[in-house]
Amino acid sequence: MVDSILVNKSRVTPSCDMSDNETPGDDPTRRRGDHEVVPVSPEEVQFLEVPNGSHGGSGVSGINTSLINKEGQLKSILKNRLETVEHVDNLSVKERRRRHSSADEDDFALLHGRFEKIPLKDFHAEIRAFKDVEDFLSGTQLMLDLQKTGLPQIIDAMATRLLEKKEVSSQTSLEEARHAIFTQDSVHTLSKTIQGTMTSDESGFDFDQNWICVMCDIPTLTKRHVVISRLNSPANLGSTSQEVQFVILVMAPVREKSTKSSLETARTFATLFLDMDFRHQLLLAESEFEFKQLLHSRTKLLIEEQGLPENRKSHLLLSAFEQEEQEGEAARYPIGQGLIRDFKRRLPHYLSDYKDGIIGNKTIHKVTSTTFFLYFACVLPNIAFGMLNDNNTEGIIDVQKVLFSQCVGGLLFAIFGGQPLIVLLTTAPLALYTKIIFSICEDFDLNFPAMFACTGLWNAFFLFIYVFFNTSKLMKYSSRSTEEVFSLFITFAFSADAIKDTIKDFNKNYHTDACHHVNHSNPANQSASLLNNILTTTVSTMTTGNSSSNSSVAPPGGGIIEECLRENSILFLLLMLGTVWLGITLFNFTKTPFLNAGKREMLADYALPVAVLVMSFFGSYIFREVKMKPFKYKERDQMFELAPLHLLPVGAVFAAAGLGFSLSLLFFMDQNISSALVNAPSNKLKKGAAYHWDLFVVAVINAFLSIFTMPWVHAALPHSPLHVRALADLEDRVDQGHVHQIVVHVRETRLTGIISHVMIGLSMLMLPYPLAYIPRPVLDGLFIYVAITALYGNQLFDRILLFFTEQSAYPPNHYIRRVPQRKVHLFTVLQLIQLLVLCVFGFSPIPYMKMVFPVLIMLLMPIRHKITPKFFEPKFLKALDGHTH
Amino acid sequence: MVDSILVNKSRVTPSCDMSDNETPGDDPTRRRGDHEVVPVSPEEVQFLEVPNGSHGGSGVSGINTSLINKEGQLKSILKNRLETVEHVDNLSVKERRRRHSSADEDDFALLHGRFEKIPLKDFHAEIRAFKDVEDFLSGTQLMLDLQKTGLPQIIDAMATRLLEKKEVSSQTSLEEARHAIFTQDSVHTLSKTIQGTMTSDESGFDFDQNWICVMCDIPTLTKRHVVISRLNSPANLGSTSQEVQFVILVMAPVREKSTKSSLETARTFATLFLDMDFRHQLLLAESEFEFKQLLHSRTKLLIEEQGLPENRKSHLLLSAFEQEEQEGEAARYPIGQGLIRDFKRRLPHYLSDYKDGIIGNKTIHKVTSTTFFLYFACVLPNIAFGMLNDNNTEGIIDVQKVLFSQCVGGLLFAIFGGQPLIVLLTTAPLALYTKIIFSICEDFDLNFPAMFACTGLWNAFFLFIYVFFNTSKLMKYSSRSTEEVFSLFITFAFSADAIKDTIKDFNKNYHTDACHHVNHSNPANQSASLLNNILTTTVSTMTTGNSSSNSSVAPPGGGIIEECLRENSILFLLLMLGTVWLGITLFNFTKTPFLNAGKREMLADYALPVAVLVMSFFGSYIFREVKMKPFKYKERDQMFELAPLHLLPVGAVFAAAGLGFSLSLLFFMDQNISSALVNAPSNKLKKGAAYHWDLFVVAVINAFLSIFTMPWVHAALPHSPLHVRALADLEDRVDQGHVHQIVVHVRETRLTGIISHVMIGLSMLMLPYPLAYIPRPVLDGLFIYVAITALYGNQLFDRILLFFTEQSAYPPNHYIRRVPQRKVHLFTVLQLIQLLVLCVFGFSPIPYMKMVFPVLIMLLMPIRHKITPKFFEPKFLKALDGHTH
Repeated sequence: MVDSILVNKSRVTPSCDMSDNETPGDDPTRRRGDHEVVPVSPEEVQFLEVPNGSHGGSGVSGINTSLINKEGQLKSILKNRLETVEHVDNLSVKERRRRHSSADEDDFALLHGRFEKIPLKDFHAEIRAFKDVEDFLSGTQLMLDLQKTGLPQIIDAMATRLLEKKEVSSQTSLEEARHAIFTQDSVHTLSKTIQGTMTSDESGFDFDQNWICVMCDIPTLTKRHVVISRLNSPANLGSTSQEVQFVILVMAPVREKSTKSSLETARTFATLFLDMDFRHQLLLAESEFEFKQLLHSRTKLLIEEQGLPENRKSHLLLSAFEQEEQEGEAARYPIGQGLIRDFKRRLPHYLSDYKDGIIGNKTIHKVTSTTFFLYFACVLPNIAFGMLNDNNTEGIIDVQKVLFSQCVGGLLFAIFGGQPLIVLLTTAPLALYTKIIFSICEDFDLNFPAMFACTGLWNAFFLFIYVFFNTSKLMKYSSRSTEEVFSLFITFAFSADAIKDTIKDFNKNYHTDACHHVNHSNPANQSASLLNNILTTTVSTMTTGNSSSNSSVAPPGGGIIEECLRENSILFLLLMLGTVWLGITLFNFTKTPFLNAGKREMLADYALPVAVLVMSFFGSYIFREVKMKPFKYKERDQMFELAPLHLLPVGAVFAAAGLGFSLSLLFFMDQNISSALVNAPSNKLKKGAAYHWDLFVVAVINAFLSIFTMPWVHAALPHSPLHVRALADLEDRVDQGHVHQIVVHVRETRLTGIISHVMIGLSMLMLPYPLAYIPRPVLDGLFIYVAITALYGNQLFDRILLFFTEQSAYPPNHYIRRVPQRKVHLFTVLQLIQLLVLCVFGFSPIPYMKMVFPVLIMLLMPIRHKITPKFFEPKFLKALDGHTH
Repeated sequence: MVDSILVNKSRVTPSCDMSDNETPGDDPTRRRGDHEVVPVSPEEVQFLEVPNGSHGGSGVSGINTSLINKEGQLKSILKNRLETVEHVDNLSVKERRRRHSSADEDDFALLHGRFEKIPLKDFHAEIRAFKDVEDFLSGTQLMLDLQKTGLPQIIDAMATRLLEKKEVSSQTSLEEARHAIFTQDSVHTLSKTIQGTMTSDESGFDFDQNWICVMCDIPTLTKRHVVISRLNSPANLGSTSQEVQFVILVMAPVREKSTKSSLETARTFATLFLDMDFRHQLLLAESEFEFKQLLHSRTKLLIEEQGLPENRKSHLLLSAFEQEEQEGEAARYPIGQGLIRDFKRRLPHYLSDYKDGIIGNKTIHKVTSTTFFLYFACVLPNIAFGMLNDNNTEGIIDVQKVLFSQCVGGLLFAIFGGQPLIVLLTTAPLALYTKIIFSICEDFDLNFPAMFACTGLWNAFFLFIYVFFNTSKLMKYSSRSTEEVFSLFITFAFSADAIKDTIKDFNKNYHTDACHHVNHSNPANQSASLLNNILTTTVSTMTTGNSSSNSSVAPPGGGIIEECLRENSILFLLLMLGTVWLGITLFNFTKTPFLNAGKREMLADYALPVAVLVMSFFGSYIFREVKMKPFKYKERDQMFELAPLHLLPVGAVFAAAGLGFSLSLLFFMDQNISSALVNAPSNKLKKGAAYHWDLFVVAVINAFLSIFTMPWVHAALPHSPLHVRALADLEDRVDQGHVHQIVVHVRETRLTGIISHVMIGLSMLMLPYPLAYIPRPVLDGLFIYVAITALYGNQLFDRILLFFTEQSAYPPNHYIRRVPQRKVHLFTVLQLIQLLVLCVFGFSPIPYMKMVFPVLIMLLMPIRHKITPKFFEPKFLKALDGHTH
């Protein structure tokens, strides 16, 4: 009896109790500490822990009956102890209980087994494979002809070999290692293994019985260790490995980069050992040197073999496709052929473009929410850009016209466009072009509507040329990296717009002369004047520094009443930040466990409109005492006034051709990049793209808009890809603990575009109110919200974050697996440099400097295809810059 | 050759590919859809998918060589297809590649095995166990004397039985079920199993070979299903189960409550089947009815047995302790004994209280950061309460005095207190008492310092009485639930303070007459006046409704210059929200993967000071033009002025006794609840508590403070528990995917308290500047920050969140396992009612009504011990309201 108790006690500590499971790395002082206050004598322990004296036979029902007759004794012991125990009772009871429950299960236990097929390591693609072997070969943890036969003996010998190393033994004890390797300390069942399996037509299925790879994670380790041993004689190590000759032991820290985890490391060696011939050679190896030599050459062989083109059919196919396409296209397809092919490809899907917006699980809901999303995502920037254009053109182009442009352009494109998921919008660069044309007109005393129309028509002309010469084919050279640099630039541009607006507001309302006057004339305000004396300030330099560049974009207009309206500026900041915060919080609501999946998704889908409505309510109602200026609005007699093109002198027409050419490059790039992001393979669209046709439709739309001096529109980032995402069913994928979302299915429909643009048309009836109730800062908050949400899924941004992420949290995605880390970071840095150059030109205060901007964007492609390859091997580039994943 | 290709094809779809693993629930249309654009003829498929013609022998090296000679053919096929393929190439290549890679591994594969010991199901404690069996018995998925022998045949038969049910087969196909059950479809290895193991001294270790429990998760299922079959003759189902007679098949949806997951369900049945005798009885059962009857009675038996007191020693011990304690205490310990015992218990640790603040891994760092935390967490509320008291007492108690109180009280307690981790602070209720005393003095024309001192002395007197009669013993009746209700109330109180301040500021600066005047006199402001006409407003009702209650707490003081300073109010809101946001974001930074663990922890540790400093910089420097009023400060000639107690009439002394008694109850409850939360077992403190001694020290300190008309201090929530947490080493525990933090070790030291309070003393030299640079809204933001962070780890709050959490995301913690869900929610509702009553009285606008508040808090305990037990069985109460976990 006493014996069995003692046995139980020795097994107690490393129990695996689900309700209170201790990681092996626990501070041992803690357990000891519980007893410091209330010392427990050995005899007491015996009684307190007597859990189970019966073995075999009756199972659970027999447990603990032996305790009953001990109850009297127990009580008397308890009484004696009560003097010293007061507030620790819960604690020590818990401790005892834990032991008790683990002791319960010692004789009869449940073993939860899981088997999972894992893919072979790809030695060619995954760079870690070679490094793993190299690491091993540089160490000496190889044990040839081990004489042990039992499983525990073999493992102990191997672990001990490892622990001989000083730096290892100082961290980790043999006890710990054993605890991690086996499920139960007393019974030696291996916790985690990899074994080879073989299936053949003749013999059916079997495990490779003569090698096994054992893994464990030990929290106290700081480095991975691998020991390989060859047994002198085959040993029976359990049911699926009855004549084992090779044992591979992998020990890894718990917190380790995911590509260096114990499973990944074990996978490397398991892949090596899977080959029967190779194992045979290893058996014959006579020295450690020979053994290692074999491992080394096997690794080299695997890298070569797995890299051979016939073993990488996929690559072969890919390049075959590409080549064929390149050669074939130019020769075979004459002028306008791309356009016709696009048309033919999309036509069969035309009816389904409507059907897909109605039929299907959750489709109605998604289409509704997307329509609202699209409506708000378009109408709000329209108002914002309308205000900007109004300022820039002294009212010739105003909010009304922008809304009209949006409605007509969007509707036409949604009905006739090739890829209806693309969203047309007027954008900041277009507003800039308008501004440049306006100032040219002022400088040379030209008629602005005529000049604007002329430029627009030239632009359309050049676009037609691109279309008919199938120039969009060039977009093939635009890779993911190029698109992402551009898209990140747009993100910055959006944020910059919002920040500029804020600074402008501060200049207008906060730092006015009127305010300074108030400040200094008020003698009561001691602390403020005290503060004023401290240093010249960042704020003032910041604001004055920017006000010059700022005024060039949007001059403060005519007569502003000089009032001190500081509350306006501060409310501006509050509303803007509030909109961003609320929008992002709702957008991320899907990541919480609250409500249910459907409601969460709905909240996320409506994040933008909800944020705008709520913050508009705050801005225009709760804080209605603060007089924020709504946008200007004047009734128009005539919306459709033909531009007086005949008024233009010939010189101006040629100047317009230059402007139009530059503009057409901007259209071409923006349109095609947006289109490429929409058609990205990860979006899993099925109906095919229509680059040529889309560009054609855009050209027609803009020619029409130009004649009536309406603002231009083209495919916009990030609205277009966000539109796709809004219509998509997403699925969470867990890859070794890292969750990422994958598009499963997209409803490719024209309905969202059509309905939302009809709604935008109807919104013109809402001018000036209630649309004017949407305060300016909310619109700016919207810009920032759109900019931030566009970062989700941008691989460039993901890789920038890696700079600040700790190694062990690196996601095990394809480029981390396939490209050395330094190369990954180098690639990111190269992209950042391109981004920086774009930003310097794009945000330059000199307006004419921005005219070279479209050329710069075009330059990104040759940089990617001529310069970048000098730094990277093609296979790394393919992993980093591919469109898969 | 063709044969093997076809075989491969059939195996392709359900592959388990790590880099692109598809969950079985994938929309099948997607895969089909990829090919819609580019139809692939069967012949092509053959060539495209020819991955591996060789079997056996050479392993990886032999793969795919058969493809080479096919290359020519392949190319010609490709050429023909190019016409129709354009942008889909990446996609289809990827698709093909996936298939290719899975086909690669079909003959030689790696199998990753994991074994884990799992505890038996506790039929007594875990309510799901019984429900699982009941569910099963009510169904009819029992197959007696199944004639099949092979593993696939048996599983197929069982799955088919299940799929016969209409509601199941409409969701799930046999194909899917098979795919989930086996690791490979072609080779039938079970993915997840539970088996019994047996260890005995004689026979060593073995698996129970005659039963096996098979689990799988199927995304398309909506309900759990269990099938049990008894085989006609023992079947060999693999290496560890060679004569299986019972097969239990558990199929569960993927998204399911964690207590109803496949593993949990399987654990229930595995626990039932673990008993050898029981299995023998089942073998002999002759009908389904008998079989079910046996299962039923076995379940009942297990519930009883596992619930027997001797099998639940822990409970026995617990109640034994409790009884002994209750009986013993009162009788054995005479007056003052508690005090002496506390003293004796803590004295041996006194030296270590200093040592533990210096020695140990990361101790210096933790002590430093905690000191700063404590400094900021105390000094900032001090300033805030100082301003409040200043208003309430017309300057008699001001910021200076509060700081001094804090310094002296904190220092004395840190040096002489029993539990140095408790933090003393003056609080909102104390400020209220001060205010009540002040208004009584005004009403009856008494000397305020004298009355204040007299009340304080009475309070101290009553506290001494409590100490000497060991009244703190009563705190034993205070359970976790009581404490958490109170702590949630304090959280509300803190937030309410901040909100009141905000409203006050708006009333003072935003809604003043001056502003209204400006508004109406300005004719330019059309929109605002338009808005003004719409409905009477929430804001005005809100603010006016509150201003009455508000003015009673803190009247707007004497002469406010009637200015329109709307920017102040809006900046107030901006700074307050900014402080909260920044603080919380930094506090949660440990949950991100950025930087490294050390830096993240540091950022979280310093969240409070960083947030305050940053936002003060914004408030006082960036927005220095906005004249925010700093707190009043006047030089004092004499800090230590003895209260003129002799001026009090006798009646007033008795009135003071009444006030003092009520006050002493507040002290008693606040002090002891804070103390209990500090000494909570989950904090794993080792040096023991000292309730009596602590109360004694607090009484002495407050007697001293009263004489000099200094504000009182007592143990404060949530500062005290936060102090413990700041000094603790935390560890993440993952329990079935739910991460929660556990305290591993706390540095129990006096140094943090001493140093931080010395710093607070030195801060008095920083009056008025730079302390006055901390704007009021930042202080209020701090209140909210402290209130929100106090919610972390509050089980009541966790349970409130459960109301809004979807079932499948319920954490599998002890109370969810042990208590029926309805009871859990009922308990939460009961607590919420108590909280509501507290709030009604605590936030009542009538100041005298708040005087009964301490009594209410006292009432929580009898409610918990007399009323609550009528709704709940004791074992549920124990799980819900225990101090474990």
